[in-house]
Amino acid sequence: MEVINDLLNYKNLKIIQNSEMFSFSLDSILLSNFVTINKNIDQILDIGCGNAPIPLILSTKTDAHITGVEIQEKVYDMAKRTIALNHLEEQIDIINDDINLRYQQIESDQYDIITCNPPYFKVSPNSHFNLSDYKTIARHEVTLNLQQLLKISRKLLKNGGVLAIVHRPERLIDLIEEMRKNNIEPKKLQFVYPRKDQQCNTILIEGVKNGNPGLKILNPLYVHNETDEYTDEIKVQFSD
Amino acid sequence: MEVINDLLNYKNLKIIQNSEMFSFSLDSILLSNFVTINKNIDQILDIGCGNAPIPLILSTKTDAHITGVEIQEKVYDMAKRTIALNHLEEQIDIINDDINLRYQQIESDQYDIITCNPPYFKVSPNSHFNLSDYKTIARHEVTLNLQQLLKISRKLLKNGGVLAIVHRPERLIDLIEEMRKNNIEPKKLQFVYPRKDQQCNTILIEGVKNGNPGLKILNPLYVHNETDEYTDEIKVQFSD
Repeated sequence: MEVINDLLNYKNLKIIQNSEMFSFSLDSILLSNFVTINKNIDQILDIGCGNAPIPLILSTKTDAHITGVEIQEKVYDMAKRTIALNHLEEQIDIINDDINLRYQQIESDQYDIITCNPPYFKVSPNSHFNLSDYKTIARHEVTLNLQQLLKISRKLLKNGGVLAIVHRPERLIDLIEEMRKNNIEPKKLQFVYPRKDQQCNTILIEGVKNGNPGLKILNPLYVHNETDEYTDEIKVQFSD
Repeated sequence: MEVINDLLNYKNLKIIQNSEMFSFSLDSILLSNFVTINKNIDQILDIGCGNAPIPLILSTKTDAHITGVEIQEKVYDMAKRTIALNHLEEQIDIINDDINLRYQQIESDQYDIITCNPPYFKVSPNSHFNLSDYKTIARHEVTLNLQQLLKISRKLLKNGGVLAIVHRPERLIDLIEEMRKNNIEPKKLQFVYPRKDQQCNTILIEGVKNGNPGLKILNPLYVHNETDEYTDEIKVQFSD
């Protein structure tokens, strides 16, 4: 069922959700707050934007133009209506396309920032999926894998442009290997833990196209405290 | 000046130190406590063993045979005398050689575990060093760099054998890249912070030769508390 929710406490932003299709997650909030945004940026691309939580949050932090690309037509449609509902059509464009095809038509070196909350799960050649399931496409590497994401980012980022990705710790090594292969040097890394007594389940990584080696590890981020409430460091991420 | 110190609270172990040459550091203690040691291991190699803190600590955890290799003759001599002082000659061999030459004479697939607290600093072609300085060789990649360390480990580790390294966060990406290139899959990673309010300055990483991908991030380790005393989680590492 489709509902209109507040996008937490971000200004008066609203977001159209559908639990059967796509609901935004904490990962998108974490990534939007992790990515380095400076004053000089002009163009941002969010790959696999879903119902557009990242473009929405980023619009509260920058005046840069933001493009979201979403392969699933019905999810794209939610994103498009979400943008209209917030009167953000001038700043945010949503495109319904497969980024693997689309990027070939885009000129190189166009974007200052690329963000992506990609599908997390690797797909093996004999995996069977129901491709009519919206969540399958959002969660499994059926339409976009790390190799493709990095190849696309390498082409589309400006020299010195930033790629920011949220992912699972199990895939960190794959991610770093693909970044290096594509001359996107990892520069900033943060580990997110559900609670202090639980294992890291999320990583945030940022790389710079043609950047010099030298990684900075940020302090760990804990999502919940001992009584399972959000920690203060997470709560501050829930508003602009 | 050479002194004989207690090796913290590890049994009654003593260690010969010389502040002008080589004193063992927290890094060696962290690595000795980080590396995965199971009952079935038979042979351990510590590359660049210094005055042998890692072999000493590991001897309290396993009955496996331990070989330490140290390129600097005077440091080797301290290690050798340290082992004798502790009556550990049966379990621990110290060899005075350049591992880059030595490993070519060693048969492949010999070791269950390789540990290394390597030189941390990259050397550029126009770096100038005083090679008679013992600390220079221990700290800078003049006699052993990451490429060499990983090539050596690839040859000497058994299939499924473990490589454990302590290093600086700035070099994590280089380290992961070299591990992957040499089929040593990173499996366990831990970040060490001097205090909660300070940046990560040490990383601990373990890889498995021909291991399957899948990384586990351990909880962060804090060395000092707010009043600059060792934390409890560090104190437990100071004894067997």
